[in-house]
Amino acid sequence: MSSPHLCSYADRADKHKNPAARALLQLMVKKKTNLSVSVDVTRKNDFLAIIDAVGPYVCLIKKTHIDVLEDYDQTVVEELQALSKKHEFLIFEDRKFADIGNTVALQYSGGIYKIANWAHITNAHAVPGPSIVTGLASVGLPLERGLILLAEMSSKGALTTGTYTEEAVRMARARRDFVIGFIAQHRMEGIGARETDDLTDEDFLILSPGVGLDAKGDAMGQQYRTPAVVVTECGCDVIIVGRGIFGTGRDIDVKEVQKQAQRYQTAGWEAYESRLSK
Amino acid sequence: MSSPHLCSYADRADKHKNPAARALLQLMVKKKTNLSVSVDVTRKNDFLAIIDAVGPYVCLIKKTHIDVLEDYDQTVVEELQALSKKHEFLIFEDRKFADIGNTVALQYSGGIYKIANWAHITNAHAVPGPSIVTGLASVGLPLERGLILLAEMSSKGALTTGTYTEEAVRMARARRDFVIGFIAQHRMEGIGARETDDLTDEDFLILSPGVGLDAKGDAMGQQYRTPAVVVTECGCDVIIVGRGIFGTGRDIDVKEVQKQAQRYQTAGWEAYESRLSK
Repeated sequence: MSSPHLCSYADRADKHKNPAARALLQLMVKKKTNLSVSVDVTRKNDFLAIIDAVGPYVCLIKKTHIDVLEDYDQTVVEELQALSKKHEFLIFEDRKFADIGNTVALQYSGGIYKIANWAHITNAHAVPGPSIVTGLASVGLPLERGLILLAEMSSKGALTTGTYTEEAVRMARARRDFVIGFIAQHRMEGIGARETDDLTDEDFLILSPGVGLDAKGDAMGQQYRTPAVVVTECGCDVIIVGRGIFGTGRDIDVKEVQKQAQRYQTAGWEAYESRLSK
Repeated sequence: MSSPHLCSYADRADKHKNPAARALLQLMVKKKTNLSVSVDVTRKNDFLAIIDAVGPYVCLIKKTHIDVLEDYDQTVVEELQALSKKHEFLIFEDRKFADIGNTVALQYSGGIYKIANWAHITNAHAVPGPSIVTGLASVGLPLERGLILLAEMSSKGALTTGTYTEEAVRMARARRDFVIGFIAQHRMEGIGARETDDLTDEDFLILSPGVGLDAKGDAMGQQYRTPAVVVTECGCDVIIVGRGIFGTGRDIDVKEVQKQAQRYQTAGWEAYESRLSK
């Protein structure tokens, strides 16, 4: 087989066995977008206004942990779900689970957020070892959810390198029913593979943060790359963009935010088409 | 200098420059306890009942992320703070921050939990690189808080090994004003040290989970060791115990929970005294 990123999103949707991955790929084809907007703001009104503005242009809304919302209440989730239906995008709670199996199962299913009830996709660090996937899968699989593992991080000095990344991919490979891909900066198929591994139809979605058309980096070590680099050259599937689209996020200018979202949508999709035509 | 774990907690309190570390060491001496109870329950009433029961026997109450409480409200934090004063223990929010600097600064200071306002100590994974410490320190240092890094995890197949652990210790060493120690299973002084590093008065508190007097492990990969192994042999400073003390945690038998807490307090303290007399 050819590497999955050289197949169309549509073909990959047909083959994928995880319902959340399939739904995401189908949305991407239907809306012609591989853009995910990362909505890292602290006020509920800003949060919902940004999502309503960018909704038509995205396949996925990523929230960098809902616990940064100062005025969170149950209506946030209800309104987020309504927007998800209105604009047809999936919800990705960027929880970055990072604890042992028993604990993450509680954090995922319970508490006041009950993330598993409304987030189609969530993510986790590989650092605690396989029990984190087992714990999350016990909650998420019956709800047809998908999990993303952090195989790489784009911040300076991140420890997600070498054997760390290999072990993360091995953990994913062992649970392909639930782990649908990675937060990473390039393809992960075959990484850390052993001779006895069955790699048939291995298709991990690569979601890549740190994407920007303008900015070069911030004061706290975040680094940026363009959609062409991320999608065409590195083969990533979903570009994650934040402040490049909505600026400070406070009292947004809807038209301007939509203009930026459309700009990233176009750049991301052209990069994908360019990859397919290679 | 001798290794810090061969000095008394009292001597170490006198020398430590971080206010949270100093306060913790002073409490340990005053109450003759190196026991931290990890209160991983999902109902507020159970949470507060356990803490009130074990309060006299502990130096530190560790909450495995407050977001597992189903009926969390603002009174939880108020009552937790009142118990902290009544029984004289510090509060350790086991948040396991694991994101880039800008994000963790928001998660630590804001949202509905405002962890920095009430948790004397919190913790973070080293995986995002040094920006996570920078981000948390920008919030925590002005409030005289301390940070624990996860240098090791006790779950099976954890990726906190080799260079990962070395890099985590280097990150801590670079910010000894704020990083006061590690979640780990043995001493970390000198690990990953470069020739040019100033190791004078390096004193990291080692908080060790996975401690049990009875149980051997659970179904999701958690492993247990005794206080004698953890404190005397491996030189750890604080033992972290959970269900070994409060069982399921539902509608606790206060006397039984206190008996178990006292049993762990005694075992932990004897292990410490035995270490000093070596």
